[in-house]
Amino acid sequence: MDSDLLLNIDDYARAARARTAKDTFDYFEGGALDEITLRENTDGWSRLKLYYRVLASVGTRDMRTTVLGQQVSMPIVVAPTAFHKLACEAGEIATAHAAKAAGTLFILSSLSNTAMESVFAQAGSPRWFQLYIYKDRGITLELVRRAEAAGAEAIVLTVDAPGLGTRERDSRNSFRLPDGLTVENLAPLGKGNMPDVEGSGLAAYVKANLKSDLGFDDLDWLCRSTRLPVVVKGVCRGDDARKAAEHGAKAVVVSNHGGRQLDTAPATSEVLAHVVDAAGDRCEIHVDGGIRRGSDVLKAIALGARAVLVGRPVLWGLCVDGEQGVMNVLEILRRELDEAMLLCGCTRLEDIGKWVLDPK
Amino acid sequence: MDSDLLLNIDDYARAARARTAKDTFDYFEGGALDEITLRENTDGWSRLKLYYRVLASVGTRDMRTTVLGQQVSMPIVVAPTAFHKLACEAGEIATAHAAKAAGTLFILSSLSNTAMESVFAQAGSPRWFQLYIYKDRGITLELVRRAEAAGAEAIVLTVDAPGLGTRERDSRNSFRLPDGLTVENLAPLGKGNMPDVEGSGLAAYVKANLKSDLGFDDLDWLCRSTRLPVVVKGVCRGDDARKAAEHGAKAVVVSNHGGRQLDTAPATSEVLAHVVDAAGDRCEIHVDGGIRRGSDVLKAIALGARAVLVGRPVLWGLCVDGEQGVMNVLEILRRELDEAMLLCGCTRLEDIGKWVLDPK
Amino acid sequence: MDSDLLLNIDDYARAARARTAKDTFDYFEGGALDEITLRENTDGWSRLKLYYRVLASVGTRDMRTTVLGQQVSMPIVVAPTAFHKLACEAGEIATAHAAKAAGTLFILSSLSNTAMESVFAQAGSPRWFQLYIYKDRGITLELVRRAEAAGAEAIVLTVDAPGLGTRERDSRNSFRLPDGLTVENLAPLGKGNMPDVEGSGLAAYVKANLKSDLGFDDLDWLCRSTRLPVVVKGVCRGDDARKAAEHGAKAVVVSNHGGRQLDTAPATSEVLAHVVDAAGDRCEIHVDGGIRRGSDVLKAIALGARAVLVGRPVLWGLCVDGEQGVMNVLEILRRELDEAMLLCGCTRLEDIGKWVLDPK
Amino acid sequence: MDSDLLLNIDDYARAARARTAKDTFDYFEGGALDEITLRENTDGWSRLKLYYRVLASVGTRDMRTTVLGQQVSMPIVVAPTAFHKLACEAGEIATAHAAKAAGTLFILSSLSNTAMESVFAQAGSPRWFQLYIYKDRGITLELVRRAEAAGAEAIVLTVDAPGLGTRERDSRNSFRLPDGLTVENLAPLGKGNMPDVEGSGLAAYVKANLKSDLGFDDLDWLCRSTRLPVVVKGVCRGDDARKAAEHGAKAVVVSNHGGRQLDTAPATSEVLAHVVDAAGDRCEIHVDGGIRRGSDVLKAIALGARAVLVGRPVLWGLCVDGEQGVMNVLEILRRELDEAMLLCGCTRLEDIGKWVLDPK
Repeated sequence: MDSDLLLNIDDYARAARARTAKDTFDYFEGGALDEITLRENTDGWSRLKLYYRVLASVGTRDMRTTVLGQQVSMPIVVAPTAFHKLACEAGEIATAHAAKAAGTLFILSSLSNTAMESVFAQAGSPRWFQLYIYKDRGITLELVRRAEAAGAEAIVLTVDAPGLGTRERDSRNSFRLPDGLTVENLAPLGKGNMPDVEGSGLAAYVKANLKSDLGFDDLDWLCRSTRLPVVVKGVCRGDDARKAAEHGAKAVVVSNHGGRQLDTAPATSEVLAHVVDAAGDRCEIHVDGGIRRGSDVLKAIALGARAVLVGRPVLWGLCVDGEQGVMNVLEILRRELDEAMLLCGCTRLEDIGKWVLDPK
Repeated sequence: MDSDLLLNIDDYARAARARTAKDTFDYFEGGALDEITLRENTDGWSRLKLYYRVLASVGTRDMRTTVLGQQVSMPIVVAPTAFHKLACEAGEIATAHAAKAAGTLFILSSLSNTAMESVFAQAGSPRWFQLYIYKDRGITLELVRRAEAAGAEAIVLTVDAPGLGTRERDSRNSFRLPDGLTVENLAPLGKGNMPDVEGSGLAAYVKANLKSDLGFDDLDWLCRSTRLPVVVKGVCRGDDARKAAEHGAKAVVVSNHGGRQLDTAPATSEVLAHVVDAAGDRCEIHVDGGIRRGSDVLKAIALGARAVLVGRPVLWGLCVDGEQGVMNVLEILRRELDEAMLLCGCTRLEDIGKWVLDPK
Repeated sequence: MDSDLLLNIDDYARAARARTAKDTFDYFEGGALDEITLRENTDGWSRLKLYYRVLASVGTRDMRTTVLGQQVSMPIVVAPTAFHKLACEAGEIATAHAAKAAGTLFILSSLSNTAMESVFAQAGSPRWFQLYIYKDRGITLELVRRAEAAGAEAIVLTVDAPGLGTRERDSRNSFRLPDGLTVENLAPLGKGNMPDVEGSGLAAYVKANLKSDLGFDDLDWLCRSTRLPVVVKGVCRGDDARKAAEHGAKAVVVSNHGGRQLDTAPATSEVLAHVVDAAGDRCEIHVDGGIRRGSDVLKAIALGARAVLVGRPVLWGLCVDGEQGVMNVLEILRRELDEAMLLCGCTRLEDIGKWVLDPK
Repeated sequence: MDSDLLLNIDDYARAARARTAKDTFDYFEGGALDEITLRENTDGWSRLKLYYRVLASVGTRDMRTTVLGQQVSMPIVVAPTAFHKLACEAGEIATAHAAKAAGTLFILSSLSNTAMESVFAQAGSPRWFQLYIYKDRGITLELVRRAEAAGAEAIVLTVDAPGLGTRERDSRNSFRLPDGLTVENLAPLGKGNMPDVEGSGLAAYVKANLKSDLGFDDLDWLCRSTRLPVVVKGVCRGDDARKAAEHGAKAVVVSNHGGRQLDTAPATSEVLAHVVDAAGDRCEIHVDGGIRRGSDVLKAIALGARAVLVGRPVLWGLCVDGEQGVMNVLEILRRELDEAMLLCGCTRLEDIGKWVLDPK
C-alpha cells in the first residue's frame, strides 16, 4: 500500500501538518475557542444523505457556472485566506496561478503577504478582493481604489469579524508573522506590521485597526464608493442575507469564517437553506466552511448555493507543494464533484436539486 | 473459551481478514471514500427495534418464499459480487454449489473469474446473471445471449455504477487481478483484462468499458432484448423504483452497492420503506447492504422486502473455507432468522409485518 | 480513597467479575448476540430526565406497596434468575433469606439449583414461582402442583423464551452446570441435567424440553390449572399485554429477559408506557431490565409500573457475599430510591407521576 | 507553545487539579452518583447554536445589569459554594474581594469557613447570603438575623437539598473538613463541625441538621421573617417557579446544584426556557450549572435569564491563585461574553434575544 498517495483533502491536511511549522499549521487549521463550529462545519455536510437517482442518461458532466456573471469552470472557488507566504515562498502568486489554471475564481485576502497589484497582475479572471473595513475610512477607500485599479472584479466585504474571534492555539503560540513578512497591502498605509504583544499578534492587529461597529451604513457607503459589485461574506441568518441584498450586496456568502470567529455558531450546511429561502431570489448565495469532498459541493448546490469557497484545502495544497499542490487540491475536488454528479444522475449543475436530499 | 469458534458473520469477517491478502480483503471489505455509507448500512439495521409479540403459537418456521416466481428455501440469497477466485481457488463454482446446497438463489456477477457457462452448469435453480451495460451494445447483447443459453433465469441490471465509485483502499493498493485471473466472461469478447494503470485497475476497466450515460432507454432496450425477466439493482429512491417497474423491471433491488459507489448515500434500511411505498404494488422489492444478522433479514421483510441479498458475508465464508464456508455463513443467517422469527412470534414470512417495528 | 467500597450496583458487578469464574460471570452478565438490547436496557433508564419538584414537604419516605395484593416493603423485588449455586454455595436459599430480610418479594426460577420446597420453606412472603411450560404438560402441571403445595403465591409464566436466545458468550464457553449441580426442581421429573453437547448446554436443554409453540391457549390452560394468580413475564407490546390480561393474567412484566433473548428488542423503559396505556387498567404492570439505580425505579413508577424486578444486581450480590451481598444490594437500591424520592419531592409512591418526566 | 497559559476556565480546572489535594478537588468537581447531570449541564450549553447577526453597528459592549435592583457590572455573579478555605488560606475573604473588584454580586454560602460578619465586612455590594433551613428554626432565624445585621442584601434559600445527594467521590474519600476548619457561621450555634463518620462527613452533617421536609410553608415563614428579599435556588420546573414567586420569592435560580443532588436531573439549559415561560413575568430568573464560556452566558440571557451564577470556575480560580485567580476567572468570562456579544451583534444585554437561537 502506498500510504504517501495524496488522494483526498484529508491526505493533504496530514501531509501539510508534517511539513509545516506548528504555529503556522495551527493558525491555518485552528478555530475559535473549543472549535465546536470548526468540527460542526465538516460534520454538517457529512450528515446530509444523498438520495441519488439512477438511469438518468448522464452525459459528460458540465460544471461550468457563473459567479456574478463571470464564467468559472466549476462551482468551487478559492476562498480568501491570509498569509500565504507562511505556506510557501511564492505565496499568493502561487495560489492565483493555480486558480487561473483551474479556471476558477480567486479571492485575494486583504491580509496577503503579497501586494494585490502583483497578485492580480498574474491572476486570471474572475478575481475578487476581500476587504475589511478599517477604522480609518481613508485607508479603506484607498484599498478599494487600488483593488479597482489592479483589476479586481468584485469586493468581498467580510462582516463576521468586527473583532477577531479568540483562537486559543494562536494565543498559546503567540502567533505573529515572522520577520520579513508583512500585511503587504497595508504596508504603504502604515498598517503592514502586527504589534509585538503577548498572545496573538493578529488579534492585536485587528483590535487596533479594524472597525468594530460595522453596520449596514458601512455597507451602503461601500456600495456607493465603488463601481464594483459588493459581496457580503460571513452571514449566518436569513434576515441578514435579505437585508444585505436590500442594501446593495450582489451576493452573500454563508460563512462562519471557517469556525474561527464565534464558536458554537451553527454549521453552514444548517444555515444555508434558511438563507436561500430568505434571499435566494434577490442575490447569489455562496457558502464556505467544512467543504472537504466533492459530494459536499453537490449538497451545497442542492441546498441552493451557486458556488462554494474552499479555504483550508487550498492552504494544505500550498503547504505541501505550492502552486502544484493547490492545483492538485482543486482537481481532486473537481474530480470528486464530477463523480458525485455522475453517481447522483446529474449532467449539469441545474440538474442538482433539493430532490437529492429527499427520498420520496 | 474457544475464541476460534465461528459463530456469526463478524467472526467470519475476522477470520477472513486473518487469512486473506490485504489488498484482496480491502477490495472485498472497503467502501467508497470515507466509507460513511458502508457503516450506515450495518448501523441502520441495528438501530431498528423489534417489538416482538409473545404467545403466538409459533410452529416450525417456514421461511420458504419465491423470487420472481421461483422457489427458494429462505429469503436470503447470494448477491452478485466480483472475483471469487481472489477468495478461494474454486471461485464462483464454490459459491454456486453452496447456494444450491442452501436451496437459495445464486446471482452471478458478470465480473466473475469463472465463465458463466461453467458456473451455471453446476448451479441450482434459481440462478440469475448480473449485467453491466457495456459501451458496446454488441458485447452487452452477447453476454445476455450467453446467459440465456447457459440457463440464467433473470438478468440483474446494475444501475448504480455508471462509473466506479472511488474506493481509496483500492487506489492505495493499486488493486488489480493477479496474473492468471481474468474477467472470464468478457475474455472471449476482448475485455477480460484490467488495464495496467496507476491506482485501481478496476476503476480504469469500468471507465474504459462500461456505459456511463445509462438511461431508462437502456432498460427498455434490455427488456426488449431478452426473454428473461429484468431486475434493476441499485435503486435509492421511490420514484426511480416506480419508473423502473413502469419500464419493465420485474423486481427492484434497493441497494447502494454495499457502500462502494456514492459515499453518504443513505442506509438501505432507510430507503426501503420509501421504495416499497412507491413501487411495492408493481414489482418485487429486494434489498441488500449491511445485512449481518438474521434479525436484519426479519426487519427487511417487515419493511416490505421480499428477500435480502448478502454479499460480503458470502465472501468471508469463501475466504475462510471455500464452499463449506459459504454454506456455513448461509446456515448461520438461516438459523438466526429462524430464531428471530420464533422470538418475534412468526411462523411464516407472511406473519412478519410492520407491526414488529411499532410498539402499539 | 477507598476503592474497595461497594457503594453501588456497578461496584458489585466489578467485584463479582473479580471473584467469579469467567463462564459463570459471562452467563450471568451476557445477553443475546450483539448485546444491543442488554446495553439499551440500562441506557434507556439513564436517558430519561427527572424534572424534580421542590418545597414539597417530603416526610419520611414510605415506599411500601403491594404486588398482587401482598405487602412488600418497597417496589423493588427479586427477579427470577437461574442457577444461584453458581454464585455461592448456599444458592437460592441465600437469596430467599435476603429477600425475606428486605421484606420484599422473592421469585424463584424454575431453573434453580435448589428444590422449591427447600427454598420456599425458608422464604418469607410473598414468594412466587417462575414457570416455563414444558413440552410435557404433565411435567408442567407437576411443577405447578408442587409450587402450590410449597407455598408459592403466584405463578410467573415466562413467555419470551419459546426458544433460548443465542448467547454467544455461553456458546464460546460451552456453558453448562458443573458436576454436582442440577436443575433441581426438574431432577425428580428426569429433566435435571443439561445435555453434554458442543456449545451452550442450556440452549440444548431448552430446545429439548420447553414448548416452543407457546400460545394464549397455554395461558388459558395454566389459568384453569391453578388456583394461584398467573403473572405473564416477557411482554414487549401493548396489545400483547391487553390480551394477556383478557386471558387471565393478573399482572404483566414488561421484560426482554434482560436482553438475553431477542437482540435489538427495545429497552423496557421505551416499552413500558405503551403497555401501561394498553393494559394498565386491567392488570398490574411490572418491569425489569437494566435497573441499576434507585432513580431508575422512580422512573419506572412514574411510567406506571407497580414494581421493578432486579436480576443481575442480586446475582452480583450473591457472587460477592452470598446472602449478605444480596441484602446489601437491595439496601443500596432502597436507599437510592429513598434519596431519589426525597430529591424529587415524593413522600409516597403515589406521589410519583408522569409529571416528573415533564418540565412543564 | 506556552501550555501553562491559563486562557480559559478549563485551563483553570486543569491547573486546580494539579495543585489541590485529591479529596478537595473531588469535592469541588464531583457530582451525584454517575455524574450524568454534571456532564449534561456543560454539554447542554455547548449544544445550543448561536445564529449571530452581522452589520449590527455594535458599540462598546455594555453588560451592566441589575439583580434585584442592585447594580452589577456584568450578568455573571458568584454562586454560593462551600468551604473556600479548602481552596486557599484566605478563603471566602479572597472570593469576596475578587467579586468586589469585578463589580459583581457575591453570594456567600452558609457553609463557609469564614464567618459571614468577617466576609460581608470586606465584600462590596451587592452581597447575598445563602441559607439552608435547619431543623431548628431558632438556628435558622439566628442565621437570618446575623445576615441582615452583617449587611446581606438578599437571602438565597436553597431548595434542592432537603437531603444531600450522594456524591460517591466524597464517600470514597471520606470527605470531611480537615482539622482547624469549621462551618464557621454555625460554630457559635453548636453546628460547626461535621460528625466523624464513615463515608461523607458532609452528608452526615446535612442529615443531622437540615430540615428535610422543606415546604412552601417554610418559604412563607422565611419571607415573613426577614425584611430582605428572598431568592429561591434549585428550581427545575416551571410550575415550581411560579409557585415560588406566588409565595414571595423575588427571584428564582434555575439550578440542579451543579449536578450534585439528583443525578439525571436535566441540564439547566433545558429547564430555563420552561421556567421563564411560567414565571418570567413574576420574578427574576437566574440560572447556574455548567457555565464555562462567555457564550454560555449569552445563551442563558437569550433564553430569558437575568444573570448566571458561576461556582466551580470561581473555585478553580481560588485553588490556582486565590483572590487573583478568582479575578482572572471572572475577567475571562467577562471578556468572552464581551466577544460573544460583539460577534453576535449585541451592544447591550437587551439586544440579546431568542432570535439568536433561531436562524430565521
